[in-house]
Amino acid sequence: MAIVLGPNRYGKAETRVVRVSRDGGVHRLKDLNVSVSLSGAMEDVHLTGDNAAVLPTDSQKNTVFAFAKKYGVGAVEEFGLLLARHFVDSQPTITHARVEIREYGWKRISGPHSFVRDGGEVRTALVHSDGTGGAESVVSGLADLVVLNTTGSEFHGFIEDEYTTLAPTDDRVLATEVTARWRHRDTAPGWEAEDWDASYLEARAALLAAFAETHSLSLQQTLYQMGRRVLAERAELCEVRMAMPNKHHFLVDLEPFGMDNDNEVYFAADRPYGLIEGAVLTDDAPGAPAAWS
Amino acid sequence: MAIVLGPNRYGKAETRVVRVSRDGGVHRLKDLNVSVSLSGAMEDVHLTGDNAAVLPTDSQKNTVFAFAKKYGVGAVEEFGLLLARHFVDSQPTITHARVEIREYGWKRISGPHSFVRDGGEVRTALVHSDGTGGAESVVSGLADLVVLNTTGSEFHGFIEDEYTTLAPTDDRVLATEVTARWRHRDTAPGWEAEDWDASYLEARAALLAAFAETHSLSLQQTLYQMGRRVLAERAELCEVRMAMPNKHHFLVDLEPFGMDNDNEVYFAADRPYGLIEGAVLTDDAPGAPAAWS
Amino acid sequence: MAIVLGPNRYGKAETRVVRVSRDGGVHRLKDLNVSVSLSGAMEDVHLTGDNAAVLPTDSQKNTVFAFAKKYGVGAVEEFGLLLARHFVDSQPTITHARVEIREYGWKRISGPHSFVRDGGEVRTALVHSDGTGGAESVVSGLADLVVLNTTGSEFHGFIEDEYTTLAPTDDRVLATEVTARWRHRDTAPGWEAEDWDASYLEARAALLAAFAETHSLSLQQTLYQMGRRVLAERAELCEVRMAMPNKHHFLVDLEPFGMDNDNEVYFAADRPYGLIEGAVLTDDAPGAPAAWS
Amino acid sequence: MAIVLGPNRYGKAETRVVRVSRDGGVHRLKDLNVSVSLSGAMEDVHLTGDNAAVLPTDSQKNTVFAFAKKYGVGAVEEFGLLLARHFVDSQPTITHARVEIREYGWKRISGPHSFVRDGGEVRTALVHSDGTGGAESVVSGLADLVVLNTTGSEFHGFIEDEYTTLAPTDDRVLATEVTARWRHRDTAPGWEAEDWDASYLEARAALLAAFAETHSLSLQQTLYQMGRRVLAERAELCEVRMAMPNKHHFLVDLEPFGMDNDNEVYFAADRPYGLIEGAVLTDDAPGAPAAWS
Repeated sequence: MAIVLGPNRYGKAETRVVRVSRDGGVHRLKDLNVSVSLSGAMEDVHLTGDNAAVLPTDSQKNTVFAFAKKYGVGAVEEFGLLLARHFVDSQPTITHARVEIREYGWKRISGPHSFVRDGGEVRTALVHSDGTGGAESVVSGLADLVVLNTTGSEFHGFIEDEYTTLAPTDDRVLATEVTARWRHRDTAPGWEAEDWDASYLEARAALLAAFAETHSLSLQQTLYQMGRRVLAERAELCEVRMAMPNKHHFLVDLEPFGMDNDNEVYFAADRPYGLIEGAVLTDDAPGAPAAWS
Repeated sequence: MAIVLGPNRYGKAETRVVRVSRDGGVHRLKDLNVSVSLSGAMEDVHLTGDNAAVLPTDSQKNTVFAFAKKYGVGAVEEFGLLLARHFVDSQPTITHARVEIREYGWKRISGPHSFVRDGGEVRTALVHSDGTGGAESVVSGLADLVVLNTTGSEFHGFIEDEYTTLAPTDDRVLATEVTARWRHRDTAPGWEAEDWDASYLEARAALLAAFAETHSLSLQQTLYQMGRRVLAERAELCEVRMAMPNKHHFLVDLEPFGMDNDNEVYFAADRPYGLIEGAVLTDDAPGAPAAWS
Repeated sequence: MAIVLGPNRYGKAETRVVRVSRDGGVHRLKDLNVSVSLSGAMEDVHLTGDNAAVLPTDSQKNTVFAFAKKYGVGAVEEFGLLLARHFVDSQPTITHARVEIREYGWKRISGPHSFVRDGGEVRTALVHSDGTGGAESVVSGLADLVVLNTTGSEFHGFIEDEYTTLAPTDDRVLATEVTARWRHRDTAPGWEAEDWDASYLEARAALLAAFAETHSLSLQQTLYQMGRRVLAERAELCEVRMAMPNKHHFLVDLEPFGMDNDNEVYFAADRPYGLIEGAVLTDDAPGAPAAWS
Repeated sequence: MAIVLGPNRYGKAETRVVRVSRDGGVHRLKDLNVSVSLSGAMEDVHLTGDNAAVLPTDSQKNTVFAFAKKYGVGAVEEFGLLLARHFVDSQPTITHARVEIREYGWKRISGPHSFVRDGGEVRTALVHSDGTGGAESVVSGLADLVVLNTTGSEFHGFIEDEYTTLAPTDDRVLATEVTARWRHRDTAPGWEAEDWDASYLEARAALLAAFAETHSLSLQQTLYQMGRRVLAERAELCEVRMAMPNKHHFLVDLEPFGMDNDNEVYFAADRPYGLIEGAVLTDDAPGAPAAWS
């Protein structure tokens, strides 16, 4: 029995780059958190500490900043592709790059150069590349999107085992914090930043619309409808993966105080919480397990 | 030398209450985090563990839920006053109540009962009351309001001691996460929820406008202008207190890569950060040190 | 092109159960955070909202509490196996269970029933089961173990591309926050709680010893040595996976103040950070990709 | 009515300095988070943006690093005094300095230069100084000390109002996360690092012993006993202030599953929580409200 090195990757995580651009006196702002992971001929560095194959993570960070200057930052997906291809194309020892980006939104306030942080959801991109011409994948997405329906949600007809005490309900609050990611069929050659942005905004709108419009018998049903809607509306996408915690809102028992509670007063609980995870895909979607990790 | 009990208070912190109300089929949503602290005749409970003067924190929590049902939740300031007065008025052993509320915002999505969390700033209220007819104070405010100017900020002319290496600049990014609180002259008898809401929204707008419009020579100057603007526009307020971290955005040195950086690419740093704290008040503001703690 | 349901799972996350047991007047304490995820015949619940196959997450939570009472909590691995097998064995619609546990440590203070939280690393377990007699895996581990060497770490001989500015060093601080997980060859039939505990403690000791004793030419080398040591010492284990952020400690430039800095004063940075991820395994380790997810 | 500047302060927060010192080949490690706040002649900077009175926060950060080199880091209290006095003594415009330090503990692992982070409580110091010879105060303390008694805690005899549903109990789990701070009678002239360390360790031990040994009828009683014990054992201290959340551990109702629950299985809740805050002091303690803020 010998001990051997298994899968590995390394890189610089969470480089916080802010890129300002100007159109005359009017400024634009992109605010990113970029994480790079590289893999390749890394036996030696693990086994003997020989760094000859290692591009320092510090250089990766510098590259993020330099590329933000050189190419600007259009859409996070294209910025991710640019970086990922660069690392593989320029370094013989690097055979694969993964770039994950989180983008924080800002809204304009009065004046041409003033902004307020849009504290809602974060836009995300996850890019894998074996280099120009090699295998690649692009996953767009969002995180921290908190949504709530005050009605239109039921839960009944479930299994009742010896540990079941939950009462069925035909009217409950349904709240969740959506993490959703969707895989593009290809890397969208020829797309400009505005194409990526439009695709993102419409996928997001589809998620919100499906959440609001689904009369829900279970959070799983809502999740499926949200994924289905994205794929039905966006032909460039082939798979959606979602994680949706059931942020429980428990109806408070007000009877001891002589009051009824006709779905008016809720306690918003922290833990534990239900957690629903699932994928929705088109039946012609090519397999791509590595695209998501 | 004897050992004695000093100032003390106790209560239930962070009761997360969500109140739904209906106008026909259209739902409204209030989402609060309520913290109650009571004080009074608490010698015995500390010295001997005799709880005869103690209203359990569990009962305080129940009261928050029951009041949300009974009175609804209009503005956080009036809900805080209602609760604070109740505890002092109803319990002989309680002579003072402090109620702190954080309100999370929600925006409507399509349909009458669907909402998305507005992840921006949190609205806050801090109420102190000695009971109906007694001394009272109301402090409104906000937290987590992140703002940024891409230009219009300078910093120079400062002291240079033996540990100073900072270069003066006449163009920098200015970013901060505003925590601001403003004290009302009185408890605004006769005000309805919409009056409190209007006061809040206009104070918030004044903060944002002053941040955007101030050509800043220091973050202190910006802070002062923000507070001044609130007081200039809102006669019902007499004091503003702010804490504003200087969220440093450092210009990245791109020279090693043969590039200039004309205020285009920044590194957003986490720690350390400058921290500017200050009060702005009208010269006729009555003293109220306890209003803020 | 049709839209179909892909892989999915659901369950109750983060049930916080504390189990007290007594040996005469001497109390023992186990403090767990248990997350259950189930999968199986879940087409209907996603497609139509029919919950006939769904064991409510609330029942899963109840089961965690009831099992803590009924069986006690010995080692987290066996408690996880017990729960996972129960869900699959008892519900025809459930074909697979995943149980993830985090255990918080407590140290005894004076007296038989008083404890102080050991704020160091968290012990973890991840169990997968297709039910009694079916495929199963057990991964033990730890998280939040922060370690630091003040010397004995070098970094040089790396690639220098056009974006490289990092200077090589032959003496730096090496600090990381270890997340390590190790896979057992089997589910260790016949093991008692003390066997699991001994295995855990010795794997942990091997990680610490290898970290301290490795003269490091790169964090990858340290990671590999840590994994190798665990496998060399524990025959019941076949694979170790680690994620180790390089918590950079930058030497402060004190020259402007007329001081040298002979590796004495460091700035501990937050972001960005290097991130090293890797697996070490025995060459006879059976493949088990699902064991880790 | 005019608008005027009120109390204000500014400084560099959260400078993360790590100081290594050597005794032959044996290394020692101090890991601090230092926050400086200065106040003085700051009218101009607020009103006009004139920075002539402002020592940049960047220089304050540099000073922390330079002093760590120049003087080493003995006890956090003396390092805080050193810094605070320096700023006031060296800058005519600065009349008051506040230095707050959090110290993270490390334990030695095998070998002379390897450490593991002690994830338990954080040691704290808060120093105020008007400069050498002026008014000064030193508050030592700790935060994040989580303690739990599995028995020896009762709660009954409390007020029962119309919103009270809590059942009295004569046996409950008592758990809290202690934040405690204690004020020294003076700045302890002549004390060395080991005196400060001994004072800290014995105050901490007194807190723990009193928590474990107090048969508690309310958390207030426990708090008072903890403070009293510190003052009874440490003559150099004159006041203790504590904030202790009641980390509720609710007994799980297992009756629906045919089980009793004789104080064996608890649910550890997050929110809401009780919050007990109080001061204990000697009757000869000089007033010092500013020492704590």
